[in-house]
Amino acid sequence: MAPPSQCFDAMHGAANDGAATVPAAAAGTPQCPNVLDADVFRRQGHQVIDFIAEYYGGMGEYPVHPSVTPGFLRNALPKDAPSRPEPDAFGSALRDVRDLILPGMTHWQSPRHFAHFPASSSTVGALGEALIAGINVVPFTWAASPAATELEMVVVDWLGKALHLPESLLFAGGGGGTLLGTSCEAILCALVAARDKKLAEIGERRIGDLVVYCSDQTHFAFRKAARIAGILRDHCRAIHTCREDMFALSPTELQAAMQADVDAGLVPLFLCATVGTTQTTAVDPIGKLCAVASSHGVWVHVDAAYAGSALVCPEFRHVIEGVESVDSFSMNAHKWLLANNDCCAMWVKKPSELIAALGTEQEYILKDAASEGHDVVDYKDWTMTLTRRFRALKMWLVLRCYGVDGLRDHIRSHVRMAEAFEDMVRADERFEVVTERQFALVCFRLRSPEKFGGEKTANELNRGLLEEVNAVGSGPYMSSANVGGIYMLRCAVGSTLTEEHHVADAWKVVQDRASVILRKMEIIYSVLG
Amino acid sequence: MAPPSQCFDAMHGAANDGAATVPAAAAGTPQCPNVLDADVFRRQGHQVIDFIAEYYGGMGEYPVHPSVTPGFLRNALPKDAPSRPEPDAFGSALRDVRDLILPGMTHWQSPRHFAHFPASSSTVGALGEALIAGINVVPFTWAASPAATELEMVVVDWLGKALHLPESLLFAGGGGGTLLGTSCEAILCALVAARDKKLAEIGERRIGDLVVYCSDQTHFAFRKAARIAGILRDHCRAIHTCREDMFALSPTELQAAMQADVDAGLVPLFLCATVGTTQTTAVDPIGKLCAVASSHGVWVHVDAAYAGSALVCPEFRHVIEGVESVDSFSMNAHKWLLANNDCCAMWVKKPSELIAALGTEQEYILKDAASEGHDVVDYKDWTMTLTRRFRALKMWLVLRCYGVDGLRDHIRSHVRMAEAFEDMVRADERFEVVTERQFALVCFRLRSPEKFGGEKTANELNRGLLEEVNAVGSGPYMSSANVGGIYMLRCAVGSTLTEEHHVADAWKVVQDRASVILRKMEIIYSVLG
Repeated sequence: MAPPSQCFDAMHGAANDGAATVPAAAAGTPQCPNVLDADVFRRQGHQVIDFIAEYYGGMGEYPVHPSVTPGFLRNALPKDAPSRPEPDAFGSALRDVRDLILPGMTHWQSPRHFAHFPASSSTVGALGEALIAGINVVPFTWAASPAATELEMVVVDWLGKALHLPESLLFAGGGGGTLLGTSCEAILCALVAARDKKLAEIGERRIGDLVVYCSDQTHFAFRKAARIAGILRDHCRAIHTCREDMFALSPTELQAAMQADVDAGLVPLFLCATVGTTQTTAVDPIGKLCAVASSHGVWVHVDAAYAGSALVCPEFRHVIEGVESVDSFSMNAHKWLLANNDCCAMWVKKPSELIAALGTEQEYILKDAASEGHDVVDYKDWTMTLTRRFRALKMWLVLRCYGVDGLRDHIRSHVRMAEAFEDMVRADERFEVVTERQFALVCFRLRSPEKFGGEKTANELNRGLLEEVNAVGSGPYMSSANVGGIYMLRCAVGSTLTEEHHVADAWKVVQDRASVILRKMEIIYSVLG
Repeated sequence: MAPPSQCFDAMHGAANDGAATVPAAAAGTPQCPNVLDADVFRRQGHQVIDFIAEYYGGMGEYPVHPSVTPGFLRNALPKDAPSRPEPDAFGSALRDVRDLILPGMTHWQSPRHFAHFPASSSTVGALGEALIAGINVVPFTWAASPAATELEMVVVDWLGKALHLPESLLFAGGGGGTLLGTSCEAILCALVAARDKKLAEIGERRIGDLVVYCSDQTHFAFRKAARIAGILRDHCRAIHTCREDMFALSPTELQAAMQADVDAGLVPLFLCATVGTTQTTAVDPIGKLCAVASSHGVWVHVDAAYAGSALVCPEFRHVIEGVESVDSFSMNAHKWLLANNDCCAMWVKKPSELIAALGTEQEYILKDAASEGHDVVDYKDWTMTLTRRFRALKMWLVLRCYGVDGLRDHIRSHVRMAEAFEDMVRADERFEVVTERQFALVCFRLRSPEKFGGEKTANELNRGLLEEVNAVGSGPYMSSANVGGIYMLRCAVGSTLTEEHHVADAWKVVQDRASVILRKMEIIYSVLG
């Protein structure tokens, strides 16, 4: 094994950009074993762990969202990668991460990050990722890493049971699941499986007759998936929802839309129902929607990207009533279940339908003699990608180390904090809670006083409020929704580090900024008469 | 902050599966701040680093591929996740990884892993992943983490320049790149962009007339992508290649195929050319293929998943001659460029065409006041997924810490070892090198003696040889190809830990097993007459 110094010299050899063949000097250089040397790894690894620990320890000090303008980092970095690493390049790079990069990040792990949905973190989730990257296998078939495939099969059943999913979606009940990167992938895979199943019945050429359904609240990932899968752009029905229904998809409206398409000679294909929409966490009534869909031979997928994590608590089981009838189901454990980015679990009732659409058979893929005659799972046939990460290890560690009860405590603590926030909003009559809180998201807005224009100016008023709230460096970071013409602020409690006092402080900032805005308007109003 | 013991108690609270509402006891439990506590992270993190370092240190001791049968792990694990974690759950889980899981893995990082293509690892790549997971942001828009988006823009330009890509594919030249998980995603994104551009010209309804092209050596990822994108199954032309052309796609054959489709009223859409095919690392002649494609208005994508890494060495620049004319290009830095799984870089000449197909506009996505009026990149619009990982940080660390020269040394050391292996094969007249080595893959086979049936039995003979080679616990692990009816063994040098003696030992095992097989055949032959 070449000593590190030799290796360092090799790395500092002259660049050979103009050469057309391997230069003689390079041909004689030793390979660089220290690139994966155990001792180097240990030394650098401990540096990284301390770095992250310090980041967590000081998280509360960062403004959640940086005050930077486009180009701030691009312009600060060299235009080319270095030819040769500087001395102690790793240490120096870590310093740059601390001094140049972190100050320009939006800190999703900040206890004051209430925007979007959470990017759930835990020590075990983060370290599970580290372990995955260290072991670095590519379990695209059973043979390509048997333990990785088997652990994935075990863990999707564990997770499915923990979330109270029906046995028909689990391996234990003839279905099965897999761990992907994102819900976008899960929805696309399910849609392609449904499409190919339908086209096998009616003929491939009729792809232009297929129609898919969702609500106007469904995440745009679905429209994107439909587009990718070749569904005509105007064959994606985003059915209107209303405030009285809490923005849930109406089975009656769905039935009407499907019937109209059938009457027009089109073919209803797929329904993407949502449990916990992105804007307001609306819950589509799965059971009733399935009844409508099944009468038209339509595949039903449930996207529970965010709210799926809450199903670990039995008190939320009711939100998926009727789930026994769905064809596929997905949720992001990286959103709210302590599994760091990325980890989307997808289950299907009939894996064979996924495989029919996405499966491939190639001789050059090694089969293992041990697996012959066995019906092993080759996950490459379940999804759109061949290369995959060993996400099961992370999810298994999370379930193992926190336990189902620990995950319930985690979810419930956020729900309680959101309840507390909601109570504070309701207690201030200048504000209103726009849609009933269902999980740990509170959608609220400042009422616009009649004398300032009332409903007509409400959206503008709240846009201004959000901007002001987010501009307070030490304050919370929230996002917005615009549903049924109503602009509202979203406070999504879910960062692992968030504690009750962060929620109380966040509310205080909102109140203060609202007071300032209202006072300003008062002055303008009095001046302008 | 609750002390760990309190938190531990909370996690050990009774399960509440039957309850329909939050039980009063749970409502009173504290949240569990130690789930992301800096000190806990530090302690567990150092455990994980030591664990991985020990794994690297002892890597040579594992058989590359385990002797296990399907169900070995599923049957060994409980059917349900634990309700409550056991004491020291993390330590105990790590012991299970060591004792139950690692023995059932295929060790892609073993210095004796010569199968498939490598899953390139480095300390910096692995720790880059750890850092990404620790920081855990979701940079789907510029505003969602400005530094993450900007670093990605910087690093794809750094990488593109290091790989000698034309400026037109870089941000610096009006194009641009992004970091995805896999080539499957890259190919699909490019194909959907091309498809929507074409359909905008000819009308969406003509999706059934579109035809895509590749060779019979192209990775099945392309056929899968075409299927996902709604291209009719029999509209994917896998053009025949032959041994005389080193299994490269022939521009003449391509022209004939495209013309035939045009004559039949169909619409040529997309060519997926490969630089370094999966089976034998064949190189399609990009420049000439582009000339053919452009005369039919066809989008050309280059899939350089494996060989793209070699482009860091100027002596390989010639394999992408003509690349200035392509529309998009992708390579997997996780295959051979020290960036651990996953990291696929994709570049396009016209980002606006990607965005036209995959872009979405939603008010609820936070816009940053700072970015208004600026033409910021929102990577969610470049790909099929919304959630994405901060892969740029890893790739930046790899380029920064090893330097372009270091990466060249890394590639060249593998190429030299593959050359050495090739020389050894050629020196044993019982064997032949089937296709000229181009990078660090050697495709070879044992010649079948005439008296044993010659060519007629050659494939069977080599299948047997591979099985025997891979069955030697302390030996190499290789895979196979079957091209033009010829079954061959593949020895892909690329594991970071591989040194010259591993390659020499691997060859010795192959020779030994061949001798045994030939001797056995000799006996059978003499007995049977």
